[in-house]
Amino acid sequence: MKKEYCGLFGVYDHEEAARMTYFGLYAMQHRGQESAGIVTWDGDRIREQKGMGLVADVFNERHIGRELKGRIGMGHIRYSTTGASLLRNAQPFLIRHGDLRLAVAHNGNLVNTYELRCELEEQGSIFQTTMDTEVFVHLVIRNLNGNTIEEAIKLACKRLRGAYSMLIMANDKLIAVKDPNGFRPLAIGRLDDSYVFASETCAFDLIEAEYMRPLSPGEMVVIDGGRMSCDRICEPQPKKQCIFELIYFARPDSYVFGEVVYERRKEMGKVLAREAPVDADLVMPFPDSGNYAAVGYSQESGLPLELAMIRNHYVGRTFIQPTQGMRDFSVRVKLNPVRSMIQGKRIVIVEDSVVRGTTIRTRVKQLRALGAREIHMRVSCPPIKHPCYYGIDFSSKGELIAANHEVEDIARFLGLDSLHYLTIPGLLSSVSHKDDYCLACFDGNYPVKVEENAGKLSLEDSAAKPGIIKQFC
Amino acid sequence: MKKEYCGLFGVYDHEEAARMTYFGLYAMQHRGQESAGIVTWDGDRIREQKGMGLVADVFNERHIGRELKGRIGMGHIRYSTTGASLLRNAQPFLIRHGDLRLAVAHNGNLVNTYELRCELEEQGSIFQTTMDTEVFVHLVIRNLNGNTIEEAIKLACKRLRGAYSMLIMANDKLIAVKDPNGFRPLAIGRLDDSYVFASETCAFDLIEAEYMRPLSPGEMVVIDGGRMSCDRICEPQPKKQCIFELIYFARPDSYVFGEVVYERRKEMGKVLAREAPVDADLVMPFPDSGNYAAVGYSQESGLPLELAMIRNHYVGRTFIQPTQGMRDFSVRVKLNPVRSMIQGKRIVIVEDSVVRGTTIRTRVKQLRALGAREIHMRVSCPPIKHPCYYGIDFSSKGELIAANHEVEDIARFLGLDSLHYLTIPGLLSSVSHKDDYCLACFDGNYPVKVEENAGKLSLEDSAAKPGIIKQFC
Amino acid sequence: MKKEYCGLFGVYDHEEAARMTYFGLYAMQHRGQESAGIVTWDGDRIREQKGMGLVADVFNERHIGRELKGRIGMGHIRYSTTGASLLRNAQPFLIRHGDLRLAVAHNGNLVNTYELRCELEEQGSIFQTTMDTEVFVHLVIRNLNGNTIEEAIKLACKRLRGAYSMLIMANDKLIAVKDPNGFRPLAIGRLDDSYVFASETCAFDLIEAEYMRPLSPGEMVVIDGGRMSCDRICEPQPKKQCIFELIYFARPDSYVFGEVVYERRKEMGKVLAREAPVDADLVMPFPDSGNYAAVGYSQESGLPLELAMIRNHYVGRTFIQPTQGMRDFSVRVKLNPVRSMIQGKRIVIVEDSVVRGTTIRTRVKQLRALGAREIHMRVSCPPIKHPCYYGIDFSSKGELIAANHEVEDIARFLGLDSLHYLTIPGLLSSVSHKDDYCLACFDGNYPVKVEENAGKLSLEDSAAKPGIIKQFC
Amino acid sequence: MKKEYCGLFGVYDHEEAARMTYFGLYAMQHRGQESAGIVTWDGDRIREQKGMGLVADVFNERHIGRELKGRIGMGHIRYSTTGASLLRNAQPFLIRHGDLRLAVAHNGNLVNTYELRCELEEQGSIFQTTMDTEVFVHLVIRNLNGNTIEEAIKLACKRLRGAYSMLIMANDKLIAVKDPNGFRPLAIGRLDDSYVFASETCAFDLIEAEYMRPLSPGEMVVIDGGRMSCDRICEPQPKKQCIFELIYFARPDSYVFGEVVYERRKEMGKVLAREAPVDADLVMPFPDSGNYAAVGYSQESGLPLELAMIRNHYVGRTFIQPTQGMRDFSVRVKLNPVRSMIQGKRIVIVEDSVVRGTTIRTRVKQLRALGAREIHMRVSCPPIKHPCYYGIDFSSKGELIAANHEVEDIARFLGLDSLHYLTIPGLLSSVSHKDDYCLACFDGNYPVKVEENAGKLSLEDSAAKPGIIKQFC
Repeated sequence: MKKEYCGLFGVYDHEEAARMTYFGLYAMQHRGQESAGIVTWDGDRIREQKGMGLVADVFNERHIGRELKGRIGMGHIRYSTTGASLLRNAQPFLIRHGDLRLAVAHNGNLVNTYELRCELEEQGSIFQTTMDTEVFVHLVIRNLNGNTIEEAIKLACKRLRGAYSMLIMANDKLIAVKDPNGFRPLAIGRLDDSYVFASETCAFDLIEAEYMRPLSPGEMVVIDGGRMSCDRICEPQPKKQCIFELIYFARPDSYVFGEVVYERRKEMGKVLAREAPVDADLVMPFPDSGNYAAVGYSQESGLPLELAMIRNHYVGRTFIQPTQGMRDFSVRVKLNPVRSMIQGKRIVIVEDSVVRGTTIRTRVKQLRALGAREIHMRVSCPPIKHPCYYGIDFSSKGELIAANHEVEDIARFLGLDSLHYLTIPGLLSSVSHKDDYCLACFDGNYPVKVEENAGKLSLEDSAAKPGIIKQFC
Repeated sequence: MKKEYCGLFGVYDHEEAARMTYFGLYAMQHRGQESAGIVTWDGDRIREQKGMGLVADVFNERHIGRELKGRIGMGHIRYSTTGASLLRNAQPFLIRHGDLRLAVAHNGNLVNTYELRCELEEQGSIFQTTMDTEVFVHLVIRNLNGNTIEEAIKLACKRLRGAYSMLIMANDKLIAVKDPNGFRPLAIGRLDDSYVFASETCAFDLIEAEYMRPLSPGEMVVIDGGRMSCDRICEPQPKKQCIFELIYFARPDSYVFGEVVYERRKEMGKVLAREAPVDADLVMPFPDSGNYAAVGYSQESGLPLELAMIRNHYVGRTFIQPTQGMRDFSVRVKLNPVRSMIQGKRIVIVEDSVVRGTTIRTRVKQLRALGAREIHMRVSCPPIKHPCYYGIDFSSKGELIAANHEVEDIARFLGLDSLHYLTIPGLLSSVSHKDDYCLACFDGNYPVKVEENAGKLSLEDSAAKPGIIKQFC
Repeated sequence: MKKEYCGLFGVYDHEEAARMTYFGLYAMQHRGQESAGIVTWDGDRIREQKGMGLVADVFNERHIGRELKGRIGMGHIRYSTTGASLLRNAQPFLIRHGDLRLAVAHNGNLVNTYELRCELEEQGSIFQTTMDTEVFVHLVIRNLNGNTIEEAIKLACKRLRGAYSMLIMANDKLIAVKDPNGFRPLAIGRLDDSYVFASETCAFDLIEAEYMRPLSPGEMVVIDGGRMSCDRICEPQPKKQCIFELIYFARPDSYVFGEVVYERRKEMGKVLAREAPVDADLVMPFPDSGNYAAVGYSQESGLPLELAMIRNHYVGRTFIQPTQGMRDFSVRVKLNPVRSMIQGKRIVIVEDSVVRGTTIRTRVKQLRALGAREIHMRVSCPPIKHPCYYGIDFSSKGELIAANHEVEDIARFLGLDSLHYLTIPGLLSSVSHKDDYCLACFDGNYPVKVEENAGKLSLEDSAAKPGIIKQFC
Repeated sequence: MKKEYCGLFGVYDHEEAARMTYFGLYAMQHRGQESAGIVTWDGDRIREQKGMGLVADVFNERHIGRELKGRIGMGHIRYSTTGASLLRNAQPFLIRHGDLRLAVAHNGNLVNTYELRCELEEQGSIFQTTMDTEVFVHLVIRNLNGNTIEEAIKLACKRLRGAYSMLIMANDKLIAVKDPNGFRPLAIGRLDDSYVFASETCAFDLIEAEYMRPLSPGEMVVIDGGRMSCDRICEPQPKKQCIFELIYFARPDSYVFGEVVYERRKEMGKVLAREAPVDADLVMPFPDSGNYAAVGYSQESGLPLELAMIRNHYVGRTFIQPTQGMRDFSVRVKLNPVRSMIQGKRIVIVEDSVVRGTTIRTRVKQLRALGAREIHMRVSCPPIKHPCYYGIDFSSKGELIAANHEVEDIARFLGLDSLHYLTIPGLLSSVSHKDDYCLACFDGNYPVKVEENAGKLSLEDSAAKPGIIKQFC
């Protein structure tokens, strides 16, 4: 599964604002490896540095220590795609309008972009990118007319539909906004006298900031002159948090939506053990995706946990081509099973998700070849049957194996003796507030209506650059 | 002196449009080393690739052979600055508006940008860069309303004041425009059945295209479906071509404004020999800047030409620091005099221009140290006393040595036995049409009025990025 | 602890000899990250490619697919050091003598190099490196006189004292030798009709070769014209295999000395649980070093295993400097604890070794700060009290915390509630053949006498290049 | 023509020995672009840094400012080859023998290497490279036996036949040696209280050292403790200096063999004008190879000198592939003629040498296409008919066009109206001491007998690495 989220970080009134932002992004690198950007307010102007690649590659000491001056900073990381690189789409998105300098970092996906864009173009707007964020910025500017920037943002947000957690730097103010359903995470913390924002709290841990709380859905937090004020962009609406953060995306050491990710994953494994026990010799994950649910499954079932798939820690992005005879090489090079732990054994594999299934199929075949007696798989989420329009890329429905096939068919395709997906009720029993989550990818009930032309602009781009998957960031 | 121009290249209806554009830019690399960009129209969309650095570094075979598909292409190179790199300002500038894809490559500098920008912001425009080009694009879009793109461009041009040679790709049309005074060069040629445009004809030579003619001032050439049509954006106005192209910037093998650069430079040297003869042993240039005027001076005066300053062909951008004792190292490392040609000799040095004079002063001191008996300098242009607002960066008036000092003072500062600058009449007698040139940097007569806030936006940026000089491209 | 071994790989009579060697080294990258080299015999000559860095960085498709021609190949990887890079010392070591081309790849450390070298210098030998291998090669050549290469190698080996597993390419022969005590691993396998050699069997797994057996101590295997013959370089002596391969160095999915590394590590954890049980809430490793012993400890003790230290998968070699206030940053950035799993808990940490203890101390302090109630550590090897002269770098005795301190002192230094090291008998009960291992680092009984000047040459070099630790590869 | 020499530089007792060496090599980069190396004596040990590529790429401030400590330094640059890179063959060559550390940098080619090597191998020597230098070092060590290093070097030199200028660092001594015929240049100079050595005096100019004199053939200069002593390695023999240094290789601003290169080249052009006058419109070089002879030809003949071939200053090593239709692209991209200076003109081209002639042929064709009326070529050296065994690579006799063809045939092949090569007497009349030069490449009279197997070792290597031409450095 592709990692499709983005990561946001902001800091207000810190001597080393750029450096803190750098490390905040660094801790959240798993949320986006395509591009990274940092902006700071130097008291007079916004300074920026953006580039393609990992945080450690995009920024150097000259950027952080000299050029990105100022006590207010914010940054953005974007997911990895295959295909052509698009620096043009890297964030934060920056514009100037008269004396106002505005930078926006956005996580999530709007579902009425096309409609808004057409409307704005009719009013003379010109677009240089295909990003949702550019549409939002035009809305803000058009609402500025006599309004404060805070009011303009609120008016602009009223026009948006979909998922957005945003950080906005407007000259010397730093503003955080979450959409009314709260699809995407965003937390606030303190670092001595400074305020900090981050998509995940692992960013706070690295810079030794203290986690305060998640933003509420529909909340707008403004930091201005060191004072924090909280406001709402709309009436309260039902929470529709993305449960995939808990299942898969977030780092297990983070708090997300107020939940401890590690514990939720372990709990999913425990429920799975109750829902679908097996008489087997051992439980094991394919590291690291199933690790924490496997711990839970083992503890609940009493079956021993084995870490019997060994990772090659030196697998990088490039190596020379294997020979044609070396089948499934790219899968095998990453993980190698411990032969003696497999041979003659009845094995339960715990995984956190199945998207296309091809990698799993190869691994199962390999275990069979080493003499595994039985192979059972337990998946710590329900079957993904519907695309996500709020920011996760399951690519397209055609590639979602569960959208088109029954569980028995999938088990047969994967070569398994048995296969069980966590049920929706089981999943909800693993989290603290079962009504607060969006389940659209499982049940197709989309909490926010999606415009007909959703993804049209993005798709156009992806057609232009073959190999790029949909860009919902 | 900094090289401050840009270079434009365009090709219409060629199987290898991107490749031809690449080589066109490659041949004109002397016109801009900061960034390079190429766009193509693939029949459906504009494709782009831009980057910081030289043409050979920005593009690879994947870009040219695979990604930049299509039969229409255009490109842009931008001059080199010191300091922070600004990919944001690389051209061609690209926007989308409804079904229209518009790319603009611009050479020159407008003098009413600030005023236009304020007006557009009041109408809701948002600016992401400080480039003149972005202002022009907004004007085009606002004039589209029911008009054809050609009409919209003409209406937009009517609002512009200053210097601009532009190439515009508007979906499948390629349009070339020159401002009413024709400050900057732009030529049209043929390559088999294709039309090509370039700032200098050396680009045509490399791809074996045939030079047809320069665009006329105020001319708009539209290539559409393989047919070329010519139009005017305004009534004819007096030509005010930049004579610095002939003196300094253009490659000597190019035609510029219909002139053969090599011959004009040689002619300037000949006039110089008549204006200011010397009783000396030899004539020599500091290669390569004075080479061609020195040839002319030698031929007219009968004094032998010597190539007695030897270039180190391996001087690159980086080397380790010399010791403090190695004074003037960066000047000396590039050129080393042949000692025996200097000792006891009376030398005439021919140079094409003097801006700050510090490098020349160092070289003169070095020649004295080697025992030169007399050193006379002949400069193949008049003293530069005024800043250029139309696209050349003489930095600021403060740095123009001739703006603040008499010739005798300069001679004394440089350590010369005599110094003569080509007179304005002498210069004009060296070119074919003496009334067709802008002489503002010599005499301060600005043919197009400059707004009070000229350079304000650019200056703001340059303050933000210390070390960047004014950006007039 | 530094990783100090090297890795060897060889293949005889394979169409893609260089490619197989590349992947063999790639699988064993954990055995050496400083440099990598591959040589092949092209039927006429030895071809070579060596470089500093990881296998994936040193070789490209041109090297593997074109330049390293031939059906016989062998390669070497060397451990990582800090400080200056020494391509000069990269292996395989290659010489020519008349028509003989000789390449040697060596894992281990001799203890009479200085003496041999002085003797050879008196006979006119010249040394270009400080490697043991160069000494060996001189001995081989001096013994060639009328002898076959196999005899010359045997005669040379009789002069060596210490640890050596070697692969030798002598024109079209490939020869593997293990020292009489068998300190270092080396295994033989088959890949279709080809013979393969590797330090660890994980190399065989990646290329889908079949593991046959380890070389015996004192054995010499010669592959010549496709035929394998086995010989001995001396009378049988007691096995003295390096137990640290099992404790720490080898990949857990490898067979080493005929043992399954994964199972031995788990067994050490089980013995540890019996030797030193604790009343606690959970067992956890600091990944990945203590992972497998922790699995064993958990299974034997019944305490739940938690994977509560989360790794940042994107920590690379470089990042910008943290602020001075961010203490212990380099330790913290790699692993972050899951707060809720630590707070109020009684924790057993299982580690595989303690060298200087400073990193562990930092981690323990961090767990205390998060509210751990009790922290107990169980180490799956006995205290390391003596330096190793046979190829492992524990740096120097001064840095071995256990060499100078009692266990209680160490526990206090590390901030632990209790600390237990696996006993020597406990360790031996974890392996299959308890008499076959060298225990010198634990008990100081060196099975092969070490010359007085041992390390003298290496030390000289390390003085010359500050920051390089002793080189025993 | 390939540039086949090497460059040597040494400095004794200077606070910034490595830095001075760096700049000395930097100034002589034209003598070798394949690899560069610097060694220093730090009072205790020799430190070294070598690498493939240009001086500016191989060394950084850390190398020069920190690692290459010491007051004695020397360096070497090696010519560029196509094909695989051979760091193994980079110099200075460095060995240790007991307490002696010996580094040798060599320019030239021995002609009895094979014989010496066989003899040394019989005595037990082992060779790790194919360099002449390694043979020399073995000879030195074998002659050390009770002798001083100076005596050992003299004894070793007595065994050598061929061309060698060498710098030798033997612990804290710096020794320079030139072969008895003085084939290759080497000069001595002073830099304040330090002694310096360099192949060409342009190296002295850059570091502001003072040129003293060239070493005499057969001279050995020893710098020890700041004192210089001069000795001879043999009885005086006739000077056989390489006249190609004056014709082609050396920088025109250098003194070589006591001659001013610039003046000798101009003189060759003058003689050429007397030997073969033409009734023409202009003289021009193909820059920069024929520049200085063209100046002489113009001055002697009275024909105007034009610099009508314009160089693209941004042509680097890489650009994307042209289309198939763009014939002779790689030749055309470097130089573009000024069309109006060619059309209808009778042109004399002055070149310094013709090797294969293919590039010249392309350029002549291009000039014809632009309408040149007549094209005459004057070459400032006699026809090269024989290979050089003393250090210049004219590749092989097969590629020397003049070895196999009459002048009229060559003229026809090149497409010229007339062609004249400078005669041997004409060439000798251009230099100061006509009896002091080796003319073997013109007349086949080899002053030092060449062994039958000359080049055998090198050829073997070049077979092994396809694309590498013979290595005579």
